[in-house]
Order: sequence, then C-alpha cells, then structure tokens
Amino acid sequence: MNFIKNGSVTSPKGFLASGIRCGIRANQTKKDLALIYSEVPCMAAAVYTKNLVKGAPLTVTKRHLVDGVARAVICNSGNANTCNADGVEKAETTCRVLAEHLNIDSNDVIIGSTGVIGQPINIDVITEGIPELVKSLSADGSAAAEAIMTTDTVKKEYAAEIEIDGKKVIIGAIAKGSGMINPNMATMLSFITTDVCISSELLDEALHMAVEDTYNMVCIDGDTSTNDMVSVMASGLAGNKEIKEKGPEFYVFVKALTDVAARIAESIAKDGEGATKLLRVFVLNSKTKEIARKVALSVVSSSLVKAAMFGADANWGRILCAVGYSGCDVDVNKVDVAFKSEDELVEVCKYGSGVCFSEAEAKKILLRDEISIIVNLNDGDFDSVAYGCDLTYDYVKINGDYRT
Amino acid sequence: MNFIKNGSVTSPKGFLASGIRCGIRANQTKKDLALIYSEVPCMAAAVYTKNLVKGAPLTVTKRHLVDGVARAVICNSGNANTCNADGVEKAETTCRVLAEHLNIDSNDVIIGSTGVIGQPINIDVITEGIPELVKSLSADGSAAAEAIMTTDTVKKEYAAEIEIDGKKVIIGAIAKGSGMINPNMATMLSFITTDVCISSELLDEALHMAVEDTYNMVCIDGDTSTNDMVSVMASGLAGNKEIKEKGPEFYVFVKALTDVAARIAESIAKDGEGATKLLRVFVLNSKTKEIARKVALSVVSSSLVKAAMFGADANWGRILCAVGYSGCDVDVNKVDVAFKSEDELVEVCKYGSGVCFSEAEAKKILLRDEISIIVNLNDGDFDSVAYGCDLTYDYVKINGDYRT
Repeated sequence: MNFIKNGSVTSPKGFLASGIRCGIRANQTKKDLALIYSEVPCMAAAVYTKNLVKGAPLTVTKRHLVDGVARAVICNSGNANTCNADGVEKAETTCRVLAEHLNIDSNDVIIGSTGVIGQPINIDVITEGIPELVKSLSADGSAAAEAIMTTDTVKKEYAAEIEIDGKKVIIGAIAKGSGMINPNMATMLSFITTDVCISSELLDEALHMAVEDTYNMVCIDGDTSTNDMVSVMASGLAGNKEIKEKGPEFYVFVKALTDVAARIAESIAKDGEGATKLLRVFVLNSKTKEIARKVALSVVSSSLVKAAMFGADANWGRILCAVGYSGCDVDVNKVDVAFKSEDELVEVCKYGSGVCFSEAEAKKILLRDEISIIVNLNDGDFDSVAYGCDLTYDYVKINGDYRT
Repeated sequence: MNFIKNGSVTSPKGFLASGIRCGIRANQTKKDLALIYSEVPCMAAAVYTKNLVKGAPLTVTKRHLVDGVARAVICNSGNANTCNADGVEKAETTCRVLAEHLNIDSNDVIIGSTGVIGQPINIDVITEGIPELVKSLSADGSAAAEAIMTTDTVKKEYAAEIEIDGKKVIIGAIAKGSGMINPNMATMLSFITTDVCISSELLDEALHMAVEDTYNMVCIDGDTSTNDMVSVMASGLAGNKEIKEKGPEFYVFVKALTDVAARIAESIAKDGEGATKLLRVFVLNSKTKEIARKVALSVVSSSLVKAAMFGADANWGRILCAVGYSGCDVDVNKVDVAFKSEDELVEVCKYGSGVCFSEAEAKKILLRDEISIIVNLNDGDFDSVAYGCDLTYDYVKINGDYRT
C-alpha cells in the first residue's frame, strides 16, 4: 500500500468535495458544512453507532442505503440534530434540497451531523448554503475535512493506493473525532471513498471487517456517541474487474481498507479532546481474539491509566488492575507489562508481580508523545491493539462547558 | 433510625479502635495504620472486589472469615500490598503479630490495605507499630477513620441507632473512598461494626443486601480497584434475641444497615478525587430493577456528563446519550430528564426530545454542590439511585502523579 501525499476523499477517481461556512456555528470563521460528490452512482455501505439514541441523520442514511447505492455525502458540524422532535424531517429536507442542486436522487444522499445534542438545528442556513456548497465542489478534499471538525484540533484526511487486478485502486478518507469516541459503534464520523469496482454486498462486508480492529478499537473517554457513523462509497472507476466473491482481490481490498482505517483511528486517538499523547495498548498472546480486544479496551479506557500517562508516571498497577476488571477470564499471574516508545522498552511487571526497573528510563519513555503499553497475557496466540490518549486538564476544560 | 452525633465504629457496644503513624507513608504527619478491636468474638462477614487482581489482604481475610468469626480489623494506607510475590505471606505475618499482641487467634483478624499497587510493602514498620497501635485502643473511632484515608480529603465515619426486640442496637462505620471506586466489587474500603446479635449466615446475607443499593452504586471514575472490601463485625452485646431467621427483626436490621451504608456511599461519592459536587442520579419507573441500576450507573459514570456538571452546563443530551449506551432495553422516546437541587427542579427533556427551559434556572441548580439528575423512563415501577461526582482538573492532577 502506498501512501498518497496530501491525499483525501477526492483522491479516488470520480469524487469531488467542498466545505463552507453556512452559519450553524456561532464562530464566524469555522467551516460547518461538508459535501462529497461522486460523478457516477456508487456502491455504498455504512456502519452506525450502537447507542439506542440515534441521531436523525443516521436514521435517514440507513433508509437511503437500503439499496446499497449513493452519490453524495452531506455533513454539518455544530449541531448533532439529535433528540429533536422534527430531526428526521429536517434531515430529509436537507437531502432533498441537496439532491435538487446536484440533480441526483434524494435517496442517494448520505447525511451526517455532529455537535451538540438536543438543540433544534437551523435548517434554513443549511438549505441556503447548499448552492454555494455545490458550486465549490473541487478536487480538493481538505475543505470538507475541515468543515466536519468539532473540537478536533487537526484535520483528518488520508489516502493510499494499491493494485487490484492490475489496476491502480485508491482509497481516501476524512474523519472527525476527538471526544465521545468509544467502541461498540461506528465510533466517530468518517467518510471513505474508493474507486474500486465491487458489489455492494461485499463492500458492506469489507467495511464491517475493517472497522472491527480500527474505528471500533478507539477510546477517548468511554462515552458512546449518538451520531457516529463510518460510510464508504465505491465509484468503480478504477477499472478492475468487479469484485463479486471473496477471492484474493477481496482480501487485498479489505487489508487496504483496514490499513487506511487504522491510520484514521490513530489520528483520531491522538487528537482526543485535550490529549497530549497517543496511547497504543497491545494485548499479546491471548486465548481468544475477543479477550485480547476487551482487555486492550479496558486498559486504554481506564481514567486512572490515562491520568498516569498524562503525568508520565509508570504506575503499572493500574494497568494490571484494568486487566483484572475487564470481565475476561485472564490468569493475572501470567501477565507481563512493559512500556515502549520508539526503540526503547522497559519491563515493569512479570507474572503479575512488579519487577525492579529504572524509574528514570520509564519516565523517558512516558514523556514521549506516542506511548505503547504492552500487556502480554502469555496464554495463547491472539493479539489486539487499542488506541487512546491521556486524560488531561484540557479534557475537563473542553467538556466542562462545551455548549457555550 | 437515629443518627448518633460524632458516632463511629466504636459506638456499638464492645468495640475499641485506634490509628497511628507507623511510617509506611513518606508523609511525616499522616496516620497510616488503623485497628478496630472487639472485646468479644464477633460474627463477621465481608464482600470483596470482583477484580480478578485481588490484593493479598483480601485473600487472607477471605480465609480468616471462612468460620464467620472475627475479633479485629487491621488496615494500612500508603501501600495496597497487591501484585507482590510475597504479599499473602506478609499479610499473614501482620495478622499473626497483631493477634499475639491482642491475645486472640490470628484467624480472627480481618486485614485491609490501600494505596499504590505493585510496590513491596514494608512489613517491618507495620509489625514494629503494632504495640503502639494496640496500646492506643480507645472508645474514639476517629483516629482509625483517619489512618485509612488515602487521597480522601475528609474522614468518613457514621453511626446510627435502631431498636430491635426492645433493645437499642447500634451500627457504626468508617470508610475510605475517593478514586477508583466503581461497582461490581465491594467498591471501597469500609469497616462496619454493630452490637446486634445475629447468626453469621444472616449477617453475611444482610451485608450482601445492603451493599447492592449503596456501595455498589458509587462510581467515581469507572475503575474497579483490586483492594476494596466492606466488612462487618457484630458483637451481639446489644442483648436482642439472636436473629436466626428472616423475620421482621432481620429486615429492620437490613434496612438500618442499608441506610448507614447509603450515608457512607454518599460521603465517598462527595469526596471523589478532585470532586466539587455530589451527583445523585435517580432512575425512575424502570421495567426492572436491573435496568434502573444499570442506567443510573451509566449516567453517573459518563466522563462527559461529569465534566458538564463540573462546568454547571445543562448539557442533558449527554445524559440521554449515556442512557442510550447503557446496554439496556430502554425506549428512549419515553425518557424525561430533569435537574434538581434542594427544592428547585428544571425539566430539560420530555419523551426523548428537548424542551424549552431557562438556562439561568438550570445554571442556578447546577452551581450547587449537591445535584440530582432525574431520569424518568416512564416504563415501569422500579427505581434506583447511583452516587458520583463531577470530573475536574483536580482529578487529573491527583491521578497524574499519584506515586510521587
């Protein structure tokens, strides 16, 4: 897989994008409305939050993707359009107005919203902004990436290239992340585009496979949002023979989609609200994949572990503690724990008990901005990795008064 | 039930207590070793953390309580004696030395430890401190309450009086709480004493019933500690006829034990690490008790809800969101949410959608130091309440560098 410099959702063949400020947000300079458009009908699929409270846009998108076909994504930031009596109606209206301006079917629009919950969304500024949004469509994806940001501090966009069936296939993605990112859901807002030619059933399956070890392994604060979704649109313009069965081409595509998703997942974790550090929790040699996943998420979600990482404090007892309450059948007397960053590694616990280690060396690792926590269960062959960040003063500050 | 002013574990007949500084902690002034002693053999029971990683003292206490009898509790702060290869041996030695000085059986000692995990405990300072600890025994429980504190900012002790079988029965308790308090465990360190006369089987059952709606409904940070335990010793000196069956006397005792436990639970939540506010989350009219409990805990554990309460921000969408990801079968379109403090109440959500409310009135409530969040599921007859606190800068500060 080759990384594409400055790549985005517009890197695959057939896609244009735009992002404008329509006025949902009080902030006078922040873009708040994004569009991705495909020149041809696309196979499309999405995964949604598992929260019972679902944003109106997700309900509408689910309806629109019943036929596995889409041509556009519209997404606003600043308001989640959730827990409002007329949210679905407003989301449908947005799709209809956009469809008219793009001359496409309203059912071919994927819609997302992100922001505060339970405040009526101002639909007028959106519909009034749509002509400009459509007019601004271009081969540059970054305005769209910018427009979906909420408390994100950096734009998240990525693209990579693989070869399938002798043809160059590109996968691009944008995302918004930061707080309220937790597994058991689509985990955040991310829109993926690709020019691969694939059946809609297999595209759906590929997306579900890719999110499992990536978006669903990110945890910022343990909360599971109402509005999160990952969608993918495939234009088919790469020219490969349509992938209709689970042969080698399918798995090459799944692998690439997973790699792109992993990069996006990492970038979301690293930009967690108030985060100063990316945490990767590797759980190795587990009896089952499920145990590896659950233990990794338990550790990466622990407020105490996250606060210790913020303080660069090698308090590994909290890690063992989080292993212990993961709900998994783990033999804690077999567990080893180590901290790692770049080439340096410090072992702090063997067989469930502390070992002598240099606090200074551990501190050196924990002061870095990317830290790996390695939990070896010594009990089988399955591994997993979860992505998270430290818990900081700024997390509290950002979330203490988000609405004002 | 009558509250006893300045009551503690020494209020019931037959109990003495003491607390000294033996030197486990670097802090030169903080007491770190506590003792509760009964002049007669007691019926005794305990509940323990459900974390698979269990502190050595819990293993030892479990052994000692097989016969349902105890005469003393010893507990240190400053070191959890957990995840150390020789922890159990050291805990047994502590019990043995104490038993020699008290002239009791070593198997009648309940032992607890709280503090950092995975660092070898200095057993010498403890055994050397025991003579002074025993000599200091008195009718005053507050030194013991003080000695078990870790990051607690206030001592937690409480006692109350009821009448059973025409006799005055007293229940007293001390506790340590603050961070790392979460359900599915005994949830914290708390030692209860009573002079009721009851069989050890029914005492055990009463304790399990009492913790369910109290200690097990406290959540500070979602982490489940390795060392937490609630124990109860009953001296039988109140003179009531021994409670041997589940008649009215048993239920009067359970009710009183639960009320005392609830007061302790609240005091622990209010003194959560860095907390500025006590949160009570009431879940009303649920289909089942289990759903009421789970939803209440989901809301009180949400970092986003807790941060919003710190900021006095009426961001009720986060509450509905936490209801939605509780994992319970809830009809979110029936849910009402209100904020309450003292006599004031502001409804913010009806039937899962926002309603117009005065931000100023909501703010007034949320600026208080005790806030109730009322979640009405409108779906049945079961209620529950969970206890927690806000998430603050100071939580991060305290936990970012706990060991140094």
